[in-house]
Amino acid sequence: MTNAPTRSAAAGPEPPTILVTCGDPSGIGPEIVARAWAATPLHREARLRVVADAAQLAAVLASRPALPRLPLTVVPADDRRPSTGTDLLVIDSGATATDGTGQAPPPGVVSAAGGRAAAGAVEAAFRLVRQGAGQAIVTGPLHKESLHAAGYDVPGHTELLARACGLPDEAASMMLWLPATDAERTGLGVVHVTLHEPLRTAVARLSTPGIVQAGRRLADLLLALLGRPPRIAVAALNPHGGEGGLFGDEEPRIVAPAVRELAAAGLDVAGPLPADTLFLRASRGEFDGVVALYHDQGHIPVKLLGMHRAVNVTLGLPLVRTSVAHGTAFDIVGRGTADPASMLAALDVARRLAAAGWPARVRAASAPAAGPSRR
Amino acid sequence: MTNAPTRSAAAGPEPPTILVTCGDPSGIGPEIVARAWAATPLHREARLRVVADAAQLAAVLASRPALPRLPLTVVPADDRRPSTGTDLLVIDSGATATDGTGQAPPPGVVSAAGGRAAAGAVEAAFRLVRQGAGQAIVTGPLHKESLHAAGYDVPGHTELLARACGLPDEAASMMLWLPATDAERTGLGVVHVTLHEPLRTAVARLSTPGIVQAGRRLADLLLALLGRPPRIAVAALNPHGGEGGLFGDEEPRIVAPAVRELAAAGLDVAGPLPADTLFLRASRGEFDGVVALYHDQGHIPVKLLGMHRAVNVTLGLPLVRTSVAHGTAFDIVGRGTADPASMLAALDVARRLAAAGWPARVRAASAPAAGPSRR
Repeated sequence: MTNAPTRSAAAGPEPPTILVTCGDPSGIGPEIVARAWAATPLHREARLRVVADAAQLAAVLASRPALPRLPLTVVPADDRRPSTGTDLLVIDSGATATDGTGQAPPPGVVSAAGGRAAAGAVEAAFRLVRQGAGQAIVTGPLHKESLHAAGYDVPGHTELLARACGLPDEAASMMLWLPATDAERTGLGVVHVTLHEPLRTAVARLSTPGIVQAGRRLADLLLALLGRPPRIAVAALNPHGGEGGLFGDEEPRIVAPAVRELAAAGLDVAGPLPADTLFLRASRGEFDGVVALYHDQGHIPVKLLGMHRAVNVTLGLPLVRTSVAHGTAFDIVGRGTADPASMLAALDVARRLAAAGWPARVRAASAPAAGPSRR
Repeated sequence: MTNAPTRSAAAGPEPPTILVTCGDPSGIGPEIVARAWAATPLHREARLRVVADAAQLAAVLASRPALPRLPLTVVPADDRRPSTGTDLLVIDSGATATDGTGQAPPPGVVSAAGGRAAAGAVEAAFRLVRQGAGQAIVTGPLHKESLHAAGYDVPGHTELLARACGLPDEAASMMLWLPATDAERTGLGVVHVTLHEPLRTAVARLSTPGIVQAGRRLADLLLALLGRPPRIAVAALNPHGGEGGLFGDEEPRIVAPAVRELAAAGLDVAGPLPADTLFLRASRGEFDGVVALYHDQGHIPVKLLGMHRAVNVTLGLPLVRTSVAHGTAFDIVGRGTADPASMLAALDVARRLAAAGWPARVRAASAPAAGPSRR
């Protein structure tokens, strides 16, 4: 890596290579990747590559006339040249969406071909990371039904990558990251202790170890992202945080012990805090991260605060993977209105995490680093 | 009522008399009442009266030098003269907070005297409404602990009024109303099916009749407030609205039957809708009202969207009562920074509901009025 032909030894550490996938070619993924590619300032700090079927990607972009045209250049996987906003550098994924017909799948529809192209690109990106040819994966939106039609029995990218890593689906989780909207703030990360299950069982299954794991993962990732020990908070389960036991006992019985355990590990952590005021306080910059106990507790505020610009960061896997937090938006494909904000933010987060050596390097250093700065 | 000395027969219907209480005199209530009184345009459309111990209220306001000074005039309860922004017209509540010492309770602390003054003013306002001397009550914030110290074994205003009406506490509920922030929107009302109980029991107790009652009350009130059949939505309980049964069965088993029953009654109602996207859609003006199934499901979005300007409207009682949705804010008493936005909005909602003849007149007319306009 130190013999990169385009950089001198005096140029400092090698810039990370970030591998970008477009998701389902029938969705807005190719559009937002192209727009983000042209707009991102990251070409100065990282080498960006799109992993795709180059000819097909060119055809898809050309078929959407409302989009800005970009010259497409195919480069071999071992090329170390810097990326720029004008040449879209594509590494062949070996996965095509043409399904043998030579035609890309039409925009805005579910298809096995679209699912195969999306999954194939991620699998190719994963192989490149494993070979050391990339330091982060940034994924565009795929469509679950297309994925299923292509024969992939997984709900999405995260589980696909968990299995590629040889881990069970539940080993992976995610943090939703809301970038700051002004320079005075640092953004807000939200992790969930429970997610895709009935609220009834989420309440029944809530456990101290589950909260501790979510809090540790959140703090670990935010330390890498922010470059300082983060201020995190754990939400309460019940109204008013249980109102001193009047409205439930989960706070003293399950949540508070988890907060104490996180604090004992040196983290700057508050809670359990009533969820309604907590998210208001967090949105005003009082916390860098929040542990939500169930799906809607975290998703209601994140969507209100700006899901269109949110980033999904994978936790629990030995690699950097970020993603847009939105879907394929089949209804607006090709109109030129798809907002690349989430893709731009996903690229930024991936670059920062790769540069910080997350997950492994930071994880090793997190406990001593967090300790002395604790409030 | 038609022989009001200050209005001619040609002036149209008699303006409603709105009775305002200051809540706990140790909190920000007196300040926001005085500031709202001076700022509201409602004096043209309603007769405003403050129900309080006049001498004490004058002393409290005078003791907070950061506030604008207002001349205080005491008028007898049967006076029908219009109110203006310069004379604060006070009807004696018969309840004093001086506790025999001649001193008002100090700012920012819990006291039995403060609780007695707050509750006494509301009881006096209730008597005036029952006598026909007022058409609406608007309450300032009280402090639960002060209320308890004064010997009132109720959680707050709503239950106090329910008992005054001879009804059980659970007969009353509330709608939180978020006024619109721009002219293109109409605001958003949120009711809760369950509220102050553990999340675990809220989930277990969720019932179709409970949702139907909440939806009917919401639609009934919004019809009066907006002057047209409202568009309402019912939130789902589980992530993604249950994802077709994968994440829980409450949607088809409990929530959807309630939505069907509301639609069959002629209401414009959608649901069950996933709660995270529902509140985003509602905040953009797609719905006038939302039925939330549990406390935090409604309170997280309302607080994020602007609790400081929200109004609490009492449902289920045979009277108009609105309130600020915030508390006594003991920490900022007397600083001159307390925002009267919620009190101003509470006055506006009370005036509109009283003018519409809500609850009785509108309730009788709601079914036929809503029917023909249904989408």
